Amino acid sequence: MEDIWGKKDFQIIKEGITYPIGIKAAGINCGIRLNRKDLALIYSDKLAEAAAMYTTNKFKAAPLVVTEKNLSLSGGKLKAVLINSGIANACTGEKGLKDAWETVSYVSQGLNIKKEYVAVFSTGKIGEFLPLNKIKAGVEKAISGLDYAGGKEAAEAILTTDTRKKEVAVNFTLGGKEVRIGGMAKGSGMINPNMATMLGLVSSDISISQELLKSALQQAVEKTFNMISVDGDTSTNDMVVAMANGLAENRMIEEKDDNYYKFYQALYLVIEYLAKCIAKDGEGATKMIEVEVKNALSFTEAKKVAKAVINSPLVKTAIFGNDPNWGRILAAVGYSGAEVVADKVDLYLKEKIVENGQPLKFSRQNIHEYLSSSKEIKIVIDLKMGEENATAWGCDLTYDYVKINTKYS
Amino acid sequence: MEDIWGKKDFQIIKEGITYPIGIKAAGINCGIRLNRKDLALIYSDKLAEAAAMYTTNKFKAAPLVVTEKNLSLSGGKLKAVLINSGIANACTGEKGLKDAWETVSYVSQGLNIKKEYVAVFSTGKIGEFLPLNKIKAGVEKAISGLDYAGGKEAAEAILTTDTRKKEVAVNFTLGGKEVRIGGMAKGSGMINPNMATMLGLVSSDISISQELLKSALQQAVEKTFNMISVDGDTSTNDMVVAMANGLAENRMIEEKDDNYYKFYQALYLVIEYLAKCIAKDGEGATKMIEVEVKNALSFTEAKKVAKAVINSPLVKTAIFGNDPNWGRILAAVGYSGAEVVADKVDLYLKEKIVENGQPLKFSRQNIHEYLSSSKEIKIVIDLKMGEENATAWGCDLTYDYVKINTKYS
Repeated sequence: MEDIWGKKDFQIIKEGITYPIGIKAAGINCGIRLNRKDLALIYSDKLAEAAAMYTTNKFKAAPLVVTEKNLSLSGGKLKAVLINSGIANACTGEKGLKDAWETVSYVSQGLNIKKEYVAVFSTGKIGEFLPLNKIKAGVEKAISGLDYAGGKEAAEAILTTDTRKKEVAVNFTLGGKEVRIGGMAKGSGMINPNMATMLGLVSSDISISQELLKSALQQAVEKTFNMISVDGDTSTNDMVVAMANGLAENRMIEEKDDNYYKFYQALYLVIEYLAKCIAKDGEGATKMIEVEVKNALSFTEAKKVAKAVINSPLVKTAIFGNDPNWGRILAAVGYSGAEVVADKVDLYLKEKIVENGQPLKFSRQNIHEYLSSSKEIKIVIDLKMGEENATAWGCDLTYDYVKINTKYS
Repeated sequence: MEDIWGKKDFQIIKEGITYPIGIKAAGINCGIRLNRKDLALIYSDKLAEAAAMYTTNKFKAAPLVVTEKNLSLSGGKLKAVLINSGIANACTGEKGLKDAWETVSYVSQGLNIKKEYVAVFSTGKIGEFLPLNKIKAGVEKAISGLDYAGGKEAAEAILTTDTRKKEVAVNFTLGGKEVRIGGMAKGSGMINPNMATMLGLVSSDISISQELLKSALQQAVEKTFNMISVDGDTSTNDMVVAMANGLAENRMIEEKDDNYYKFYQALYLVIEYLAKCIAKDGEGATKMIEVEVKNALSFTEAKKVAKAVINSPLVKTAIFGNDPNWGRILAAVGYSGAEVVADKVDLYLKEKIVENGQPLKFSRQNIHEYLSSSKEIKIVIDLKMGEENATAWGCDLTYDYVKINTKYS
């Protein structure tokens, strides 16, 4: 899928969530956090088709429950998304749920839209209640600040331990019409999405049916957001939402034709980029790690192997230490639970260093230099069992990861 | 099970593998490692009933394959166990297998016993070949050094990144006869045993059938060695072996009667102690963590929850930082994959701090002080779903874990 990055069909734009036509955003400080933006509002001029995916964590946070309910009431349509950082509104029981509904009503009243057209996100500390007064005033401030160029501020307002904004946009043409997709995300710790991710939001001005938007989102998320891991911890608040408002005026996509697949490719580009941003910005990370598993019996088996390697603390610390410790990689392949024949496995780290489960003669110094000088480390594991592949992204495990996560909260 | 520690039926002895009658051992340096013991030999005067459990890692190391074969050839009988540290003889293909058989023959020739009465263990670096000449000379030296008080030296010779020896013994009486069990283990990193553990060896002078020895070993390992985790990485070399030579002259145990259960309890004591030693001595650990999961629908469900919490890097770093960050514990419960109802879960950390999935009012300072001042942290999770319990042991995640594992090998 990576080769499409080079294709001239898709133009990558240094923009974010407000790049598509008719999408406004604002990012402000409402007082949940000190001196940092903590509230983002995204608004589509035209009612948008929308689809979402949610965490599989049993402790699903209140805003996810509310958003899921609203999307079901509206039949998959949205006009506005409110996101706060600083407090996750998770493990907050009935009161947390009531609070989340309350924030929905601030947005619906302020914008004069139906309640069910509002989605809400929260990210931050678990077990604390939202400061409703601050959010109420913040929503008013955000509404008055909504801007077609407000994407940057919104992308900033949703960050927690992240060190940088995560946003991207693409454009492409469909039947002579220019179509745009923009996206933003946040995520740095407690990252091992399953069925969805940290906060991820994608907007587009494409005209597409809700059903096909949902299908494209699910397929792309499965191969991107669901394949990243910083620490193996699946959050209570993972959610990704896609909106498509139709303002590009292309002929509406209603079946899986060439236009659908072109849109799917562009959507994939956007969310793969965002997923990799999250992996690169993993808490304390100095390097991104990409694990490609080839020739597995099925995608599920390939995914098991890729996830085991990307989550192994021993592999992650070895990469941090620029240590070509291939034995740790094979050990992770071996305990992944996937169908693997030890005597068949090939391993590439810059070059082929293991063939049929045994080490080849290679220069440790060469590999050490590759590991020392690269910010993106690629590990390729060829199982030679079948024809299915999977790629996972993660990062190294460093002193700073420990430092960030040992601070007495 | 812990309450049996206090029972006067079982006497805990500061001894190890050579405590039972008729068990000799030696621990020497044969030159695999610099200035450290690296070769242990254990010998039973009388042919012993024996049982073993092995790693589930698909890259099973050569010595495990050889030992499994020998135990099947001998019908579960052993006289000697040879263990080297420094090199794991894993991912070494046909040559590694031939080398392991070669070390078996050094022992069988030197002691003049059948080849199939010899078990071999290796632990250390993956992908390197054993230095056969050094081991050959080392075996001769070890044979001449075999001693009824050699347990300490043997326990020392099997260590790798461990910081301390792991050995223990108990005695108890069966039908008027005194019976002894001794044990030793090693393990510090790449610890997440499944079906077996890091190197673990238990000796006894009890008279018991091979079948019942095996059954007791399996049951006890499942609840002890298989419930510890340092880093979630399951090794290629995990193995635990139990030997019983009958020299205590008790009436042979041939059915699951009271005598069997008394032996089981004593065996459980020994290997639970060894398992906890490994958790305490996890790479870089400053604290042991014990996670007790209560009232699950089944042992398997309870185990899923306990393992998810004990493996969570976010929980482990929070404990290192003395941070009462209960939200991370609940998040791990939620993503464990077990049957859990979020609104039912109670959580205890020194005191009850979460009830029905929501935080109670508690003094963060109190819990912070408990975490700061204790070397053994206990987390209790009550799922209130069924009646099954499980306990897992692990350790915190520290700067030193990263340091130990980033050294350029």
